[in-house]
Amino acid sequence: MSDDDLVQKINPAAEAAQLTEFWSQRVIAGANGNLFKVAKGIGSTNWHTHDDQDETFLVLEGRITIQLRDEDVELGAGDLFVIPRGVEHCPRATEEARFLLVGPEITSTAAGGKPAWSFSSKKDL
Amino acid sequence: MSDDDLVQKINPAAEAAQLTEFWSQRVIAGANGNLFKVAKGIGSTNWHTHDDQDETFLVLEGRITIQLRDEDVELGAGDLFVIPRGVEHCPRATEEARFLLVGPEITSTAAGGKPAWSFSSKKDL
Repeated sequence: MSDDDLVQKINPAAEAAQLTEFWSQRVIAGANGNLFKVAKGIGSTNWHTHDDQDETFLVLEGRITIQLRDEDVELGAGDLFVIPRGVEHCPRATEEARFLLVGPEITSTAAGGKPAWSFSSKKDL
Repeated sequence: MSDDDLVQKINPAAEAAQLTEFWSQRVIAGANGNLFKVAKGIGSTNWHTHDDQDETFLVLEGRITIQLRDEDVELGAGDLFVIPRGVEHCPRATEEARFLLVGPEITSTAAGGKPAWSFSSKKDL
């Protein structure tokens, strides 16, 4: 890490505002083996589980519902929620929501719940 | 973790608003070996270094200056900054600032920079 990187402050909301794809994560920082990532969502992902990592959501703008199999958790701007590893979930947003994610790996893959329409939208950009 | 804990959403700003001591951290969540902690600050800590962990600040309210030996990093609400392990630093706030911290351990100890006046204020509560 160069000295320039060292003193780089980051504004997650501003980073999230630059995203072009829904349900794709951009890494903005790393610390202690975890990545800080921003993403935006609309509609929903597919139901999925991360067996090897807890996934932390911190909502930056808008509202997002973390659907669990037995409960819906409604998050507004400023709310934080940890989905423990092994817990099946499916985020859903009626309008565009932007959020910070913390976890050891990028999870915006098909196995990580990213919907097919989101992958295909890459071709249109 | 009980089912009740599982679906517990947390509002870091609301948690920070309940703090009574400056430069003391309250753990609000844990994930992947890291703790999410809230704290409030005014004045400054002592200069210190964490040799075994990176320390991530995310400002919730107010402004805080992360003094490094060769630069001051000014953070406003919504800004995120990672202090890599081994980098000496000293946070300073002219007015009360509230922030989220992420790292594997509580760092609000004397070795972690907590000033003597902050420890002594415990006796007054």
